[in-house]
Amino acid sequence: MILEIVWSYGGVDGAYVKYNTGAGVVEGKLNVHLVPHSLDDVGWLKTVDQFYVCSNNSIQGACIENVLDSVVKALARDPNRKFVFAEMAFFQRWWLEQSPETQEQVRKLVDAGQFEFINGGWCMHDEATAHYIDMIDQTTLGHGLIKSQFDKVPRVGWQIDPFGHSAVQAYLLGAEIFTNAFPIHYSPPEGFNFEVSNDFEPVQDNTLLYDYNVEKRVNDFISAAVTQANVTRTNHIMWTMGDDFVYQYAESWFKQMDKLIHYVNKDGRVNALYSTPSIYVDAKNAANVSWPLKIDDYLPYADRKDAYWTGYFTSRPALKRYARMLSGYYLAARQLEFLVGRRSSGPSTSRLGDALGLVQHHDALTGTAKQHTTNDYEKRLAIGAFEAAAVVDNALSCLVGKKPGGQCSSPALTFSQCQLLNISFCPATEEDIPDGKSLVVVAYNSLGWNRTDIIRIPVTDSDLVVHDSSGNTIEAQFINLDSVTINLRNFYVKAYLGLSPQQVPKYWLIFQVSLPPLGWSTYFISKAATEGHETTVLSTLSNPQNDTLEVGPGDLKMLFSSTSGQLVRILNSKTGVDVPVQQSYLYYASSIGDTDDSQASGAYIFRPDRALPTIVSREVPLKVVRGPLVDEVHQQFSSWIYQVTRLYKDKEQADVEFTIGPIPTDDGVGKEVITQMTANMATEKTFYTDSNGRDFIKRVRDYRPDWSLTVTQPVAGNYYPINLGIFTTDNKTEFSVLVDRAVGGASIKDGQIELMLHRRILKDDSRGVEEALDERVCIANNSTCKGLTIRGHYYIGINKRGTGARWRRTTGQQVYSPLVLAFAHEKMEDWTASHVTIATTMDSSYSLPQNVALITLQVIQICLKYSLPPSPPL
Amino acid sequence: MILEIVWSYGGVDGAYVKYNTGAGVVEGKLNVHLVPHSLDDVGWLKTVDQFYVCSNNSIQGACIENVLDSVVKALARDPNRKFVFAEMAFFQRWWLEQSPETQEQVRKLVDAGQFEFINGGWCMHDEATAHYIDMIDQTTLGHGLIKSQFDKVPRVGWQIDPFGHSAVQAYLLGAEIFTNAFPIHYSPPEGFNFEVSNDFEPVQDNTLLYDYNVEKRVNDFISAAVTQANVTRTNHIMWTMGDDFVYQYAESWFKQMDKLIHYVNKDGRVNALYSTPSIYVDAKNAANVSWPLKIDDYLPYADRKDAYWTGYFTSRPALKRYARMLSGYYLAARQLEFLVGRRSSGPSTSRLGDALGLVQHHDALTGTAKQHTTNDYEKRLAIGAFEAAAVVDNALSCLVGKKPGGQCSSPALTFSQCQLLNISFCPATEEDIPDGKSLVVVAYNSLGWNRTDIIRIPVTDSDLVVHDSSGNTIEAQFINLDSVTINLRNFYVKAYLGLSPQQVPKYWLIFQVSLPPLGWSTYFISKAATEGHETTVLSTLSNPQNDTLEVGPGDLKMLFSSTSGQLVRILNSKTGVDVPVQQSYLYYASSIGDTDDSQASGAYIFRPDRALPTIVSREVPLKVVRGPLVDEVHQQFSSWIYQVTRLYKDKEQADVEFTIGPIPTDDGVGKEVITQMTANMATEKTFYTDSNGRDFIKRVRDYRPDWSLTVTQPVAGNYYPINLGIFTTDNKTEFSVLVDRAVGGASIKDGQIELMLHRRILKDDSRGVEEALDERVCIANNSTCKGLTIRGHYYIGINKRGTGARWRRTTGQQVYSPLVLAFAHEKMEDWTASHVTIATTMDSSYSLPQNVALITLQVIQICLKYSLPPSPPL
Repeated sequence: MILEIVWSYGGVDGAYVKYNTGAGVVEGKLNVHLVPHSLDDVGWLKTVDQFYVCSNNSIQGACIENVLDSVVKALARDPNRKFVFAEMAFFQRWWLEQSPETQEQVRKLVDAGQFEFINGGWCMHDEATAHYIDMIDQTTLGHGLIKSQFDKVPRVGWQIDPFGHSAVQAYLLGAEIFTNAFPIHYSPPEGFNFEVSNDFEPVQDNTLLYDYNVEKRVNDFISAAVTQANVTRTNHIMWTMGDDFVYQYAESWFKQMDKLIHYVNKDGRVNALYSTPSIYVDAKNAANVSWPLKIDDYLPYADRKDAYWTGYFTSRPALKRYARMLSGYYLAARQLEFLVGRRSSGPSTSRLGDALGLVQHHDALTGTAKQHTTNDYEKRLAIGAFEAAAVVDNALSCLVGKKPGGQCSSPALTFSQCQLLNISFCPATEEDIPDGKSLVVVAYNSLGWNRTDIIRIPVTDSDLVVHDSSGNTIEAQFINLDSVTINLRNFYVKAYLGLSPQQVPKYWLIFQVSLPPLGWSTYFISKAATEGHETTVLSTLSNPQNDTLEVGPGDLKMLFSSTSGQLVRILNSKTGVDVPVQQSYLYYASSIGDTDDSQASGAYIFRPDRALPTIVSREVPLKVVRGPLVDEVHQQFSSWIYQVTRLYKDKEQADVEFTIGPIPTDDGVGKEVITQMTANMATEKTFYTDSNGRDFIKRVRDYRPDWSLTVTQPVAGNYYPINLGIFTTDNKTEFSVLVDRAVGGASIKDGQIELMLHRRILKDDSRGVEEALDERVCIANNSTCKGLTIRGHYYIGINKRGTGARWRRTTGQQVYSPLVLAFAHEKMEDWTASHVTIATTMDSSYSLPQNVALITLQVIQICLKYSLPPSPPL
Repeated sequence: MILEIVWSYGGVDGAYVKYNTGAGVVEGKLNVHLVPHSLDDVGWLKTVDQFYVCSNNSIQGACIENVLDSVVKALARDPNRKFVFAEMAFFQRWWLEQSPETQEQVRKLVDAGQFEFINGGWCMHDEATAHYIDMIDQTTLGHGLIKSQFDKVPRVGWQIDPFGHSAVQAYLLGAEIFTNAFPIHYSPPEGFNFEVSNDFEPVQDNTLLYDYNVEKRVNDFISAAVTQANVTRTNHIMWTMGDDFVYQYAESWFKQMDKLIHYVNKDGRVNALYSTPSIYVDAKNAANVSWPLKIDDYLPYADRKDAYWTGYFTSRPALKRYARMLSGYYLAARQLEFLVGRRSSGPSTSRLGDALGLVQHHDALTGTAKQHTTNDYEKRLAIGAFEAAAVVDNALSCLVGKKPGGQCSSPALTFSQCQLLNISFCPATEEDIPDGKSLVVVAYNSLGWNRTDIIRIPVTDSDLVVHDSSGNTIEAQFINLDSVTINLRNFYVKAYLGLSPQQVPKYWLIFQVSLPPLGWSTYFISKAATEGHETTVLSTLSNPQNDTLEVGPGDLKMLFSSTSGQLVRILNSKTGVDVPVQQSYLYYASSIGDTDDSQASGAYIFRPDRALPTIVSREVPLKVVRGPLVDEVHQQFSSWIYQVTRLYKDKEQADVEFTIGPIPTDDGVGKEVITQMTANMATEKTFYTDSNGRDFIKRVRDYRPDWSLTVTQPVAGNYYPINLGIFTTDNKTEFSVLVDRAVGGASIKDGQIELMLHRRILKDDSRGVEEALDERVCIANNSTCKGLTIRGHYYIGINKRGTGARWRRTTGQQVYSPLVLAFAHEKMEDWTASHVTIATTMDSSYSLPQNVALITLQVIQICLKYSLPPSPPL
């Protein structure tokens, strides 16, 4: 009631208040470290550039340009204010656009500790599906920028949004690291998100206006602080004062925090301060208490009982393979760039490095970005690969054209390379070899070891002979192209390149090569006088006399049932390892939510609608192709699953090529397709999966080593990310499977290994992306679209217990780093006379020990101009 | 396709660009004046303080603190940038909170012409329902702030959001003003709204990023400019670069405008420049062309064929009356404050001035704010009135206690005043008069004329006599309180004051008083020796012998049918004017939209569901009360409409008091209640309505003088705002009706005048407020709520043709400025001995001529500290 009014109002009511924001740590009080930050995905609902320049705001009103602009201005206003920033792909875009004055201002803020780079990678990489080499590379890229511009090295990791945490992430940060887990999320306590236009209760300290609330907000603050302190050791708690894409108008946050620090400290019950994770960690360390030790990882992640984030281990398998393939290519290209000396102009590997750096982002490689953003990533990869191919072309031209000890001259010749060899598209090898000339194949080995391997190229004729650089004819094998590959080639060459080649190659030409470490060899393919000299082309369903069919020209043999067409057994005639194994394809029907829980399976989350997957087929039409170098077993599991198992004479593994898709959804059911290998082994719930392609970690079904797990999703809850491989073991044998990209995998039953290879889902899983993971590929201006088909490989190895590691590591390196092939047409004699046909760039008699792998060899060129290539005129 | 890449990328790509924003007007080119502005309602969906401090953002993410903070910073970044600001109620809140450094910075920006105050009122007042005195006052309040702090006077009016424009608005701005109409709205052309987080296409000029679009955006700009130029004279067009509550992060706008000015001018086809309305107007004037002349007004406004914004002329009639009542009170209080000298501390009229200033806002007085915001306005008015009452109390105490020529001493006595006299609540007059003492009534006349008037107060006994200050007994009349008034009193005193008085006064005591100009008289009410000496209390349905009933103790007579209870005729026995008139209440059913048009009637829009209104009753119970001073005709039109018509002996008008409500809605139909007076006059479609209580403007039904009107809403489209009155005329007579607040009115048929007095509507009309105009009043913590009842007055006058103006003007002044009454209890002899009982503050023998009215007499104290009173401890 308006019955009493205090008439007196002094001069200070409503007047300017200078807030005291200068608090540091205060001993003996609860210290609330306010850490201003903005979580800025380098692509998700929008592309990285759209996020940066504020476009496409109808999808999401997010704009990183505003964040950095306004944060810098806000920090300059008060030397006590602080801010931490992580994503260098954004910072670099911004930094290049700034005036010298602003750059100078930022340098001062960085030097003063007001603006701190934390994490500092190009992105905040995913930890489940990223390869450790990519993690290192993308972090190096960001750190290089920070080092060159600010002479700083980030002290603190800040992986606050990835969907789980890997052991290798911790390993890369250091032998022993201090780790902080947020109580709930990386946002502030409820009610303290001060983003412009958000609904929050501002600290209203102007007594001339209504709703003065200083005491209430101070109490709110202290209450939230005490709640957090109750689950935190020491007198220090961290409030993550940020969220996704916030600080678009930074002053909106700092104004509130200024007031809170001022009034909370005036109150005195707790101490509030502007802080950073570095300051916070120092304060924790200073407390000198002991901490619990965590030694494995935080995978898989679940945020609800039916919401295991294990779908993204496989989501968008084409992107995952493209990124992995280019990761190996980038490694090789950087070596070659180094070997010939990086140029000051012209193509470089930087653009590919930039694209790969972006793609490691935890919403990129994970497959959890929107389709248009995924397209943007893939475009960037393609452009990067195109430019890196020019580097490889130039460098190889230079290297092979160089006489020993001589300088690399400006390259005269131009090589061709083939990115779509996996679907038999390679114009350089398909085209007719001109009279008198040869198809010159230069193969580059980026490993530090001597290597023998197989080259496999599509050709149009079978009257070809292969010579090595000494002129010796070497064994070659021709295999008819199967119709599945031809159909794939026709559709995808049109979809990806807009081309409709008139002729289709008829054969795969296969021959074995050997290469020195970090070096190359040259082979020559020419028209033979007579057809198919030492080649064999077989295409029979052979040996019907027996119930089983043994396949394999070398030590490794596989036995198939000739009645069911299914694998029965794998054995190694040299090591004596012999394992009964069945293999089949199945799919989980994706849950669309049920009455118990509305959670659907989607890009992030794997939730099968019931525990038992559906088997695709029990009877599999089988075709066996035999030859001197390789035996192939072709199995048509269904109209949309085709598998070729290759057993090479000199390889220890079975190379399984799967072609899956389009996954049918005309029944309205999303499907998540697995290959399942069931060995007759007593594995006692135990299996092993790699961490980011590096260490193997022991996994036990329905169990976590450091906490008590109640299994709510018996399949999804036992899935783990696979980057290198998965294996299981009994007391005699190790049964291993290596992969060519990130996939999800598990051992749901003893002796069993399954890999999820492809997913096509019709519902969104409510984690923000708001699109179903229903990938399509289109031709003719989107008039014809098909569900995405995936082609890939996995590799099965059987080893005596204790001997599998050697095979997994070396084979894994070869899978990651396939031979780089460059093609030309030239007279063999002219070529050998003027080129170096075989060489190592290492000491000519040296190769790395088997237990040492070469990772990266590159020019570290800390020069901003190269970090971000221009947009091409597409 | 990724087939071509330009390798070369020079050193400047993506680097810092210094935008050239310094363009001025360029002769011979189309000049696009970019005028950055933010339209900031001082209350609408949120209260003024909520808008200012960024709270309640769940309703609307709007924050004026951010606007002013960020605009000032953005202007400081580039001396070419400009911004205009209008609403001083916001600016004042912000200004007081700023540091001396920021204030200095703003002064520099103002001096440099970068920051320009335009309009500069406390708010952007409504032009239909505001009284011209309030328009002047609220503008003066804002201009005073600008003058005191910046020594500037706004050059430009900026009434860009009111729902129509009045003739008086133009008059107040100047004899002849240059006016600009926007092509569509006060927002930018489509695609050029750059509010942070909005969806717009940014100018992407960084060639290192995707979606470079400079040429496209320049073309977009030029295309929009040419479109506007095609409907604009001269080579100058204005782009209003703003919208409601925008510039929360001003840099978001200025960054885009910087780029557009830079690239558009580089292109050269048109010239873009930062500008202000002042610069624009100067450029228009410099063109030296002639312009069309508009001399009437822009009312009513419609934005679609069925969307006439004529509902708001009446919406929230209680708020409209409260504001009008306090406007008159504020005028009187300021006179009194001036007369005794404004104090440096203690209560002042400033808070009421501030509240009235806010309430003139085009979403306040209009009734188009949300209910909670309306409550906030009313609370501010109540607090302002409470403080102003203290000023009146102090000043009157001082004035009446002062001997002629003496100084005003610190007042010893305390007067009582009564805000709720209209519902018969006045503790000071109701309570028993102590033995030997009198109820002292000091009546203050704020008009500059001598005045006789009627005082009417509730009393408990009828054994009272009234004396004037010379000791003469003067005629008094007692009238029983009717039950409608008693019920109103019981409910509203509880609802508004939380009080439940045990006793109810029994009578209205009525007596006639006379007062000098700008002065006061004192009357004494005492217990009589014998009861009701010269008083008469009648309560009979008299004269049943005749078919009609003549009423009126003076010259003005009214005749009622004793069978139907309806008015039949009005005549003036002195002037001979005699008009047959019927009067009745009707209601329009509010449209809820129909298949033709979904537009509903609502707070803004009046859309009846069909042309013919429903008559409330044809037979009206009638009661006549007669007496020496006044005859009263009580008519119960329905359970929710009660009317008392009063004819005073010495007044030329019929004073009609209506009590309407709660409007029943149990039939699910919104209702808009009118009183309709039908005179037998040939008025030829013509009638006259006032503009903001000042000039009368001729209106012709279904016609606009300067454009061709197609009538789409025959009723709503002919409604006009009434603040002072409405009249119509035939060749003999003027038939006039004056009002006590803003209402909508019309003459839908010749000889007919209707006023819309109350509205209760169940649907929102889709103009943003998103609440139905369904006002309720509650008691007992909202446990009992009723639809709002409205009590008010209108005044009917009949004059010979050509003589009505005098009556309308003088009566209108009296309606606007009723007597200010102050009560005390004292011995009459003691009082007369020690007080000045009657005096004028003007020259004692002077009063203003009849055609000159005193408007405001006040201390102009340009001191910020007083402009915004503190928030009381409610």
